[in-house]
Amino acid sequence: MLINVDRFKKTMEQVNEIAVTSEGGVNRLALTDEDLQARQLLKAWMDEEDMAFRFDDAGNMYGTLEGSDPDQPSVCVGSHLDTQPNGGKYDGALGVLSGLEVIRTIRENNITTRRSIELINWTNEEGARFEPPLIGSGLVAGIFEKDWVHNLQDRNGIRFKDELVRIGYLGDESNRLNNAHAYLEMHIEQGPVLEKEGFPTGLVTGILGIKWFDITITGQADHAGPSPMSSRCDALMSTANILMKLKEHILNYGDPIVVTVGQISASPGTTNIIPGQVKFTVDLRHYTEKGLENLEKEMIEIIDAVCSKEGTSYEIAKLWSNPPTKFDDNIINTVEEAFKESNVPVFKITSGAGHDAKYISDIIPTGMLFVKSIGGKSHCPEEHSTYEDMGQAIQVLLSSVLKLAQ
Amino acid sequence: MLINVDRFKKTMEQVNEIAVTSEGGVNRLALTDEDLQARQLLKAWMDEEDMAFRFDDAGNMYGTLEGSDPDQPSVCVGSHLDTQPNGGKYDGALGVLSGLEVIRTIRENNITTRRSIELINWTNEEGARFEPPLIGSGLVAGIFEKDWVHNLQDRNGIRFKDELVRIGYLGDESNRLNNAHAYLEMHIEQGPVLEKEGFPTGLVTGILGIKWFDITITGQADHAGPSPMSSRCDALMSTANILMKLKEHILNYGDPIVVTVGQISASPGTTNIIPGQVKFTVDLRHYTEKGLENLEKEMIEIIDAVCSKEGTSYEIAKLWSNPPTKFDDNIINTVEEAFKESNVPVFKITSGAGHDAKYISDIIPTGMLFVKSIGGKSHCPEEHSTYEDMGQAIQVLLSSVLKLAQ
Repeated sequence: MLINVDRFKKTMEQVNEIAVTSEGGVNRLALTDEDLQARQLLKAWMDEEDMAFRFDDAGNMYGTLEGSDPDQPSVCVGSHLDTQPNGGKYDGALGVLSGLEVIRTIRENNITTRRSIELINWTNEEGARFEPPLIGSGLVAGIFEKDWVHNLQDRNGIRFKDELVRIGYLGDESNRLNNAHAYLEMHIEQGPVLEKEGFPTGLVTGILGIKWFDITITGQADHAGPSPMSSRCDALMSTANILMKLKEHILNYGDPIVVTVGQISASPGTTNIIPGQVKFTVDLRHYTEKGLENLEKEMIEIIDAVCSKEGTSYEIAKLWSNPPTKFDDNIINTVEEAFKESNVPVFKITSGAGHDAKYISDIIPTGMLFVKSIGGKSHCPEEHSTYEDMGQAIQVLLSSVLKLAQ
Repeated sequence: MLINVDRFKKTMEQVNEIAVTSEGGVNRLALTDEDLQARQLLKAWMDEEDMAFRFDDAGNMYGTLEGSDPDQPSVCVGSHLDTQPNGGKYDGALGVLSGLEVIRTIRENNITTRRSIELINWTNEEGARFEPPLIGSGLVAGIFEKDWVHNLQDRNGIRFKDELVRIGYLGDESNRLNNAHAYLEMHIEQGPVLEKEGFPTGLVTGILGIKWFDITITGQADHAGPSPMSSRCDALMSTANILMKLKEHILNYGDPIVVTVGQISASPGTTNIIPGQVKFTVDLRHYTEKGLENLEKEMIEIIDAVCSKEGTSYEIAKLWSNPPTKFDDNIINTVEEAFKESNVPVFKITSGAGHDAKYISDIIPTGMLFVKSIGGKSHCPEEHSTYEDMGQAIQVLLSSVLKLAQ
């Protein structure tokens, strides 16, 4: 049984006609008119497949293809239709519409699975309009409170709940996903690994945990000219040393462990004054809780060693953390069999970024598939995946769903 | 013939009573009422010593102690009475009032030198109220145009010329310093070298030249999680590498060559995005023109090598430069003899910062003396030099003036 790439491509293109930007990106922010148009398309396609339709109190959309034993927990497939501003065409939409293609293929082959299959569109995955990200899946997984979600405001002060009402998607709490057998999400990789390693699609085994820190290095501000190099207590040179040592340390770990310093500032911030203080952020990621804890300790050791040697001092504030996710072993094994059955080479990969699957894995056995991102780009008009690669991944998804739903 | 440290101390304290801050600094910005009060004290002290008084079109004050051969070019001693906001007590005031102490000592010993001795207070050395610094000496040295100087405005839009008129210090252009035999300036070191090396005072042989650059390193912005370390093109990590290599390179030169990176920013500037671009400033200083040129070339080679290796690119914009100053050999030799005559150990030092002596050396043979700065601090309430050290330096200044004026 083969999926139909041409049909899938046509469906993707229809959704991406809605909010195309002059640069070739898409601008489909959560709960806007553009998001509504995409939702209406999806709803119509669910109707065509005779799927039962409902939406919950976060506006999450569910279409159910009833199985022969509808009392059994369902097999779910989904992702999100919202995008970043001027974002990519594939991120999110791929995960929803690949699920639709799986259902269409099952239907055109007149197959009835034992378990029902639910196709899901999660609301506001991106967090580009309403912060934080992963709102729809987070509400269902019990991460967020309903009132808190409903009172979220966008930058213009417009409430999440009011927008749900405006576009006709404020549903009942009882419609939330509950007690499913499995959740599968396909997503673009958003990184360069699959392209570099030469695989069209990857079997995602988990999501990196994250720790964020605000770090302050304090030295002594001084006049550039009269302060010999050897007598300086330069907070920026200490920081540069720390950054080089952190990078080297993390490189020794190998992929997928990463460290990122995204923000930096020096004060007093004058061309001819040695910086007395530097502030920077650190984003550490590891795939195990223990590994992430070790990374934090090692980072502190590196900072401590550099500052001790150079006479600077440091403060480390923990900003935020998010534990690693390990996907369900049974799901991973089933998807691995589906790869083999579909003659697609298996490549296991860890996700560096969060996805709806992260929160859903707290309540339902979950797995993910990645599709190769050309150039590793995402959240931009240049984001690209080939239909050939997506087609292979959807074939694996179909096989996985059929195995899980029997 | 010995100078009188107690008398000098009392004089310094009288000037510094004028605009003391709650933190123990002084706030005597150029052409303010506080500056005027200090000028009135100086004028009264010049009158007491029967010095002829005049001021020029920048408000620079000159007191002349007539020599026995007044047609001979004079020997000048001076510095500035203005300070930074909440600045130090010694910076500037030391150079003017040490000259006064020299004149008082000569007068109380009933000595008449062959050449006249001129005591000078330069206007707006600091540039803290009217930018740039060194306005009074710069006008006299022909660095700045009169109209341009007169139309300078402070942050409240008040004109330099209007403030000269208001405090009664708009003098005639013909009163500017002209055709002198020598100019000597004493100043606090504003750095840690004399303290570290254990000398009360230093013989300054020149002033470091300066080159300022704006440097942009461009890499590729990417999401922190899905971008393995090995595939990144991280503009901030390239910058850290450049900074470490620049520092190492300059340390190999040894004192007094310095490099300072005072400003840095990364964009997009988000905790979980790898910086695609970093901008930073570089301040390079060397005591020879050729040395400064070589430093620039070597800096570019370092940046080029790092960027080539790491796949980043760079742009280097020249912001500003100021050539090195080499003080007059005859003056240096005479002052060196004065050190020996005064039983003060000779230590030669290069100034890292600019002073009025920098511009004046363009038109008059010039030399400088530094006095040890405790902790190397300046432009702050903690700025400190001991009266013992200042006394030794003034003794050398007296001896130098007597030699040059005979």
